[in-house]
Amino acid sequence: MARAWHLISRPDALPTPDNFALRDCPLPDLGDGMVHVRNLFLSVDPYMRGRMNEAKSYIPPFALDAPMEGGALGEVVQSNAEGFSIGDLVVHMAGWRDEAVLAAKALQKAPQIAGVEPQAFLGVLGMPGATAYFGLLDAAQAQAGDRVFVSAAAGAVGSAVVEIAKAKGMTVIGSARGRQKCDFVASLGADATIDYTAAPILKGLREAAPEGIDVYFDNVGGDHLDAAFARARLNARFALCGMIGGYNSREAMSFRYIIRVIAMRIALRGFLYGDYVSRLGEFYSEVGALVASGEVKSHETIADGLEAAPDAFLGLFSGANTGKMLVRV
Amino acid sequence: MARAWHLISRPDALPTPDNFALRDCPLPDLGDGMVHVRNLFLSVDPYMRGRMNEAKSYIPPFALDAPMEGGALGEVVQSNAEGFSIGDLVVHMAGWRDEAVLAAKALQKAPQIAGVEPQAFLGVLGMPGATAYFGLLDAAQAQAGDRVFVSAAAGAVGSAVVEIAKAKGMTVIGSARGRQKCDFVASLGADATIDYTAAPILKGLREAAPEGIDVYFDNVGGDHLDAAFARARLNARFALCGMIGGYNSREAMSFRYIIRVIAMRIALRGFLYGDYVSRLGEFYSEVGALVASGEVKSHETIADGLEAAPDAFLGLFSGANTGKMLVRV
Repeated sequence: MARAWHLISRPDALPTPDNFALRDCPLPDLGDGMVHVRNLFLSVDPYMRGRMNEAKSYIPPFALDAPMEGGALGEVVQSNAEGFSIGDLVVHMAGWRDEAVLAAKALQKAPQIAGVEPQAFLGVLGMPGATAYFGLLDAAQAQAGDRVFVSAAAGAVGSAVVEIAKAKGMTVIGSARGRQKCDFVASLGADATIDYTAAPILKGLREAAPEGIDVYFDNVGGDHLDAAFARARLNARFALCGMIGGYNSREAMSFRYIIRVIAMRIALRGFLYGDYVSRLGEFYSEVGALVASGEVKSHETIADGLEAAPDAFLGLFSGANTGKMLVRV
Repeated sequence: MARAWHLISRPDALPTPDNFALRDCPLPDLGDGMVHVRNLFLSVDPYMRGRMNEAKSYIPPFALDAPMEGGALGEVVQSNAEGFSIGDLVVHMAGWRDEAVLAAKALQKAPQIAGVEPQAFLGVLGMPGATAYFGLLDAAQAQAGDRVFVSAAAGAVGSAVVEIAKAKGMTVIGSARGRQKCDFVASLGADATIDYTAAPILKGLREAAPEGIDVYFDNVGGDHLDAAFARARLNARFALCGMIGGYNSREAMSFRYIIRVIAMRIALRGFLYGDYVSRLGEFYSEVGALVASGEVKSHETIADGLEAAPDAFLGLFSGANTGKMLVRV
């Protein structure tokens, strides 16, 4: 019998542990073409908050009283499908549970790269890393020499943005919550960091980037986005990937400097990881090499035990993670 | 002796007639390469509000106690420059006055297009028309079949957007203040109009474009821009050209739906007329032909007399104009 986290009620604002229940979950028979997987690591990600609302978004909402979904890394324990053998490491979307029986087509074998821990395929070599890579280089068209500002720079996506931008010859300013996280961002190679708990973000950005910014990689929205409007140089490009500041709120966001979009000819683009799945090959090839060489590292905060999954998820909104937040099953 | 409007104090919010004074203004001698021009029509435009602030923007602020500048159409009354003869119609930036002596290089001869009144070169065939043309087709990459929403659709830029978009096979929804202006927008060929004084703009847009919008041409910012966020379809494109709603205010603008930029992959671009001066040839050729054929018309609200210039300018912010606001000297 497997166990899986169910969403049992929809949160209004910030979710609470009461919204979740861990329930037994019978596994189907291992039919033809099916694979039995035991999960090793589960991914918890800010975007999952959107799936807890009833409203339709770019992915369907989680059903109530049913197992939740999410990225996971597992190990094949039984296989009735060609191409999968016991012990294979696989990435799939049947997270939030300990075991699953899945069709082979729902599984992706984790590429083997020397020196890379497999959980990196949920982080810097997975969805967060690819979000950073394509957001920076495609959505924001960032180039060597650009001054790049990235918010939530200690998070899974943000830390990958810092490392990839540095590897590409850009100047990087990262914001994070608190001195300790800023030290982590600096350790990734950022040229400047902003602790937004110490002073308003606009003041911090003015000091960290006195000549302004060419690129903004937005993970938070709100006052960070407004500060980026205020400090954008001519022809600045903004990639908008997440607004964690707004996920738990129905409040409007307020912008004092949005009018600078016109005078500075700012280009903003919203994008999602899913837009780039057809181009993952170039990401694995380029960032895989950077990880193998050690120029880009995988950084994780790991919570232990399936029971810890909701708390790990909730921790994303209080900044409990440095790098990718994972649950070790 | 010429007369010219001077800015004598900087407005805090909405300008008042006290900020302006009409003063005598001696004309320089007609040196070599100089042309003496008598103005026929002066242009007043929302962007001029920005030049009344001290703050540096994309164009320098107006100097205090000096003649103001602005688009104008004039007639050559005396020439000491090759290529200019008495009676030639010229477009130039020495507006806000009745006469000027200018270097020939500051003048552009008004192209002669059969059936086109020369003041159209301050409107649909001038800066507002080119702003509409390049904003729609380049900044917003609008295509035949797109559903285009344009705010301030009865204004100089907005009315040109409506006509050009219709000529290009798009569906057009225009917003304007009051029933009378909406009737004007409908007369330009708009498929639907929204009187935003009758109901909140978001409600109006939901009814006028039940399937959402592909393109938003923004002239006002604020709640119109937020409504466009709310109703944008996948891969919508926004051209941001002006935010008249914010020119007289230092208040922040509030957005409830900006987070949809991500899920809908909205691309926003700020742009200015000046970005496209090197491409005016294609604009004259294409829109000139549309005006000559009668498919696109020039629409003006004309105030009479140099004395009327400040009131005409202030009228832009209370919606006194339908089409291009001009002053006939």
